[in-house]
Parts: sequence; C-alpha cells; structure tokens
Amino acid sequence: MTAEALPAGSFSAAALRARHEDAWRRATTHRFVRELGQGTLDDRVLRGYLVQDYAFVGTLASLVGLAIARAPTMAGKRLFAGFAAILTSDENTYFQRCFDTLSVAPEDRADPALWPESQRFLALLREAGEGGYADILSVLLPAEWIYLDWATALADRLPPRFEHAEWIALHANPGFRDFVAGVAREFDDAVALLDAIQRRRVADRFEAMVLLEAAFFDAAYG
Amino acid sequence: MTAEALPAGSFSAAALRARHEDAWRRATTHRFVRELGQGTLDDRVLRGYLVQDYAFVGTLASLVGLAIARAPTMAGKRLFAGFAAILTSDENTYFQRCFDTLSVAPEDRADPALWPESQRFLALLREAGEGGYADILSVLLPAEWIYLDWATALADRLPPRFEHAEWIALHANPGFRDFVAGVAREFDDAVALLDAIQRRRVADRFEAMVLLEAAFFDAAYG
Repeated sequence: MTAEALPAGSFSAAALRARHEDAWRRATTHRFVRELGQGTLDDRVLRGYLVQDYAFVGTLASLVGLAIARAPTMAGKRLFAGFAAILTSDENTYFQRCFDTLSVAPEDRADPALWPESQRFLALLREAGEGGYADILSVLLPAEWIYLDWATALADRLPPRFEHAEWIALHANPGFRDFVAGVAREFDDAVALLDAIQRRRVADRFEAMVLLEAAFFDAAYG
Repeated sequence: MTAEALPAGSFSAAALRARHEDAWRRATTHRFVRELGQGTLDDRVLRGYLVQDYAFVGTLASLVGLAIARAPTMAGKRLFAGFAAILTSDENTYFQRCFDTLSVAPEDRADPALWPESQRFLALLREAGEGGYADILSVLLPAEWIYLDWATALADRLPPRFEHAEWIALHANPGFRDFVAGVAREFDDAVALLDAIQRRRVADRFEAMVLLEAAFFDAAYG
C-alpha cells in the first residue's frame, strides 16, 4: 500500500503498475470493456457511463492545464498541451454526438446527479491539482494507461456503432500510446525528486485511481 | 489609468485597447516591427530579442496552462489548449531553428542574462498566474492582440528569410486571429463578474503589458 514497501530503486511507473496487477486486470478486462468491444453494451449502461464521465471531463481538462503549468520542461508542457487539445476537441465532440444519439436530456449533459464513484473521481482530481507535478501525474498516469491497455486489446476489430468504436479508437492510436509513454517518463523523473512522505502520497493516489477505474465500470451496471 | 475612469458599461477588451491607442500604436509600428517586415533587421537585434523572448516562453506556456485550468467553460479550455499546443510545438521549433541559424550559444538558449524588461515580463506573467481567470486574460490578451495587429499589417508581403517571415506568419493567420478574438470574448465575460477593485487590477495589468511590449522592442536596440 505504501511507497516504503516497494524495494529501493523500484519506485517507478512500471513498478507501481506491476504492484497493482490484479486491480489493473480487473479494470482492463471488465465486463463493460468486453461488451464495448463486442458492440453488445446495453445503451442504458453506456448512457449512464458517458453522462457520469462527462461530468468530470472539465475537471480533468483543468488538471491537465495544471500539468502544463507545473511541468518543469518544455517537452513536458508540450506533452500535456497536445492531450488538452484532444480532450477539449475530439473527445468533447464524441460525448456531444453520443448524447444526441442516446437522447440524453439537457440537464444530464450539463449537471447530472453524480454517482458516489464520480464524486470520488472529482475529489481525487481536485486534490491532485492542489499538489505538485508528481501528484498530478500520479492520477493522470494510471487513468490514461488503463484506458490505453483495454482499448489497445480491442482495437483489432472495432464494433460497428460509433458510440462503441470511437471510444476505443480515441484510446488506441499511436498518438495516445506516445502520450501515455511520455507521462510515464515524466512520472519517473518527477518521483525521483520526492521524499518518503511525498512518495507515499503519490503511491496512495496511484492505487486509489486504479481501484476507482474498476469501481466506476461496476457502477455503470448498478 | 483605472477602471473607474472608464465610462460605465465600457469595461471591455475593445474599450481598454482604445484607451491605450497611443501605446498600442507605438508597439505595433515600432522600428523593430518595420525592419522585421522589410527583412532589414540587424541579426544582433533579432538574436537579442529572440534569446530574451525565449527565456519567458516556458512561463508563458505555464500561464496558458493555468488559463485552461481556470476557464469556466469547455469552450474556454479548448481555446487555450489549442494555443498551448502551438506555443510548445511550432513556436518552440521556430526559436530552436533561429538559434541554430544565428549561432546562439547554449547558455543563451537555456539560461541567458535577462534584460530588465524581460524580468518585468516574467514578473507580470507570474503575478497574473496567482490571480483569477480575468487576471490571466488581462496580460495574455494585450500581448497576443498586439502581435496579431503588427503581424497582420506585414503579412501581405513576407520578407525572404525564415527568421523574419515565420515570426510574422505565426501571428498572422486565421487560427491566431480566431484565438485572439476568443480571448477577447472570454475577457469580456470574465470582467463582467468583477468588483471595482478587481477591475482596477485588471486594467492596470492590461496597461502594464501594452507599455511593456514597446519597451521590450526598444530594449532590443539598447
């Protein structure tokens, strides 16, 4: 659970991921993911998921803005600037088109009643934004890496409907793969500068995000 | 000098610009700008200008990241995400290629001795980043709008060398024009929510930035 429990020298993106392999697999092979890839996902489940997810896309974009602000190098700022551009354009229009197709009511697009899991997402993103660069990376890295992993596993055969296919394609492409690899490098550089207390906080945030990804998929069926 | 001195209802991007018309014209028709457009700018002058300017591009990119974080709408976040992407990619490589062509020493690329005007730029950008969204906009808007204005006036006939032509083209294109128009709209929306003290601060920052743009061009000949 804590950074101290990791062998010296292994406090890295790869080591943290390996440490949470079971929770990682639970998220990346979740029923939601499988049904999305098969194109058999119930519209009611997808609608709830998208409405809740969109309710924190703005907060996620804000956190990416803070990552640009706190990144110590121009390369780090560029990495997150590119992601912010996608998040606020292609990904944003995907949600809007799905909301139209799935007949999502105006109030659910703008200000839905939040699931407890969504409230935890919001809290985790906001708390990370109050910390330093490593704190921000500790939640962005697992969130995006888990999406890269499950989407990549589905990308060979996309389902026919755009609501399913585009959500996979947005997270399974060379640009997104490079982005996640870049965030992992930034993470490794940033955590090398942390003391033990900061490392524990980063490890705890990372774990909380991995667990939350699977819990969020669960909630879509609740 | 102060927001209070502006007629009621006229605290807007257009009104603030009109209020500083003389200083605005001094910046947008500066000898530096004219010689850049004619392609007759002394390499020593250009080198000094670019080295100093690059010394705060990272801080500018950080401020744009904070604008993404503080923008209240997805449209505002998208506006600044697109600008952050250009600032950290196309504009960044322009500097690097100029540094190569103009034989700028490694230490001047990474950590140059700063002019007083550059130190004032840095201070103005950092102070704005500690404020709210309107504070950030109050420095980004005049800085980018002045560049749009002088570059647009030169864009019909670009000089032959890329060091001159590309610096003009980066600030005279439909995307950049839309960006500045978008920042002006965000500014008008944001200042509508301010009280008198906040408006005075925003007006003072705006004025300081307009004056600094001309002073910075002056310094390039110092």
